[in-house]
Amino acid sequence: MRKNKKERQQLLQETIGDTPFITDEELADKFQVSIQTIRLDRLELSIPELRERIKHVAEKKLDDEVKSLHIEEIIGEIIDLQLDESAISMLEIKKEHVFSRNQIARGHHLFAQANSLAVAVINDELALTATASIRFTRQVMENERVIAKAKVVMGESEKGRTTVEVNSYVGNELVFSGEFDMYRSNPAQR
Amino acid sequence: MRKNKKERQQLLQETIGDTPFITDEELADKFQVSIQTIRLDRLELSIPELRERIKHVAEKKLDDEVKSLHIEEIIGEIIDLQLDESAISMLEIKKEHVFSRNQIARGHHLFAQANSLAVAVINDELALTATASIRFTRQVMENERVIAKAKVVMGESEKGRTTVEVNSYVGNELVFSGEFDMYRSNPAQR
Repeated sequence: MRKNKKERQQLLQETIGDTPFITDEELADKFQVSIQTIRLDRLELSIPELRERIKHVAEKKLDDEVKSLHIEEIIGEIIDLQLDESAISMLEIKKEHVFSRNQIARGHHLFAQANSLAVAVINDELALTATASIRFTRQVMENERVIAKAKVVMGESEKGRTTVEVNSYVGNELVFSGEFDMYRSNPAQR
Repeated sequence: MRKNKKERQQLLQETIGDTPFITDEELADKFQVSIQTIRLDRLELSIPELRERIKHVAEKKLDDEVKSLHIEEIIGEIIDLQLDESAISMLEIKKEHVFSRNQIARGHHLFAQANSLAVAVINDELALTATASIRFTRQVMENERVIAKAKVVMGESEKGRTTVEVNSYVGNELVFSGEFDMYRSNPAQR
C-alpha cells in the first residue's frame, strides 16, 4: 500500500539518514512513487541531491589519515576513516568495471575496493594481505554504487596479524563480504 | 658445489623444459654461474631466449577457446587452456601493479589474474565467482613474472557449482593460491 505524503516524507528522511548514498531511482522504487515525486519531496524537505550529499560527506575532514599506502592508491573514494577501527569507501561501477557481455561488475574490482580499504584502515606504514575469504552475494551492475564498510575485528592475532571484515552494499543489499587477515610491521595499539 | 659444464647443460635443458618461463638471471642464480655463461649454454643447446620461448608458447593454437568471457578481458596472457580442466596465464608485474612505496605487487592484481583465469577455464557462457579463499604466500616485486595455473578440481558441487584451484608462481616459488567456487549456467560435462 502506498503511504500518504506525510508518512512518506518522514520515512524518506529516515531512509536518507540511514543510507545517504541511496539514489532517487531507488527511493522511487522503495516508495512506489515517481522519481519526480521524490525530487519534490526532497525539495520540500531541503534534502540536497545525491551528488551534493556525497560531496558533503567527502569534504568532511577525515578523522585520521591513511598511513599504509598513498591515498590515491585506494580503489574507490574514501568517505570515512578511523585508523585500526573502521573505514568506508564508495566505488561507482562504470563501463570499465563490467563484463562487456552482461554488464555484471567483475569480481576483482569489488575485491580491489575491499582489499585496499582493508589496507588503508591499518595504522601502520606496512600492511599486506596474508589471506582472505570472500563471498559475492549479489551481482552488481553497471551504474550501481558500491559502499564498502571495513571494520577491524581483531586488533592482533597470535601471529601479530590484524583481521579486517569488509561488507559492501548497493543500497541496503549486501553484494560482497570478505575477511582479510593482514600482516603489519607493528602490532595494533588496542 | 658448482657443476661441470656437461652436467650443467643437461640440468639447464631439464629446468627450461619444466619451467619454460624461467629467466636467464634465475638460471644464473640457480647454477651459480654468470648470465653470460647461461647465454652461451643456451646458444650451444639451441634453446631460444625467454621472449622467443614465450612467443612460441603463445602462438601454439590453444586447444580450446574461451567461452565465458572475451579473451581480452582476461588479466594476463593465456598460455594454455583446456576447458573445464586446466588453464595457464602469465602476468608481468609492472610499475602500475605495485605499491609506489615499496614496489610490492598489490594483492588485487594477483587476485584478478587468478580470478579471471578461473572464469576463463569454465566451459559455459556464464561463469561468475561465488566465493573464494585465497592466500598470498610470498611478496611479488616489480619486474617479476607471475605464472598462474588453474585446475578444475570438482566438476560439479551439490549446488551446480564448479571449484577451480589456482596456484601462481614466480619461478618455482608459490606466491598465491586460491580456491574459487564458480556459478555457471550449465553443469560441467565431466
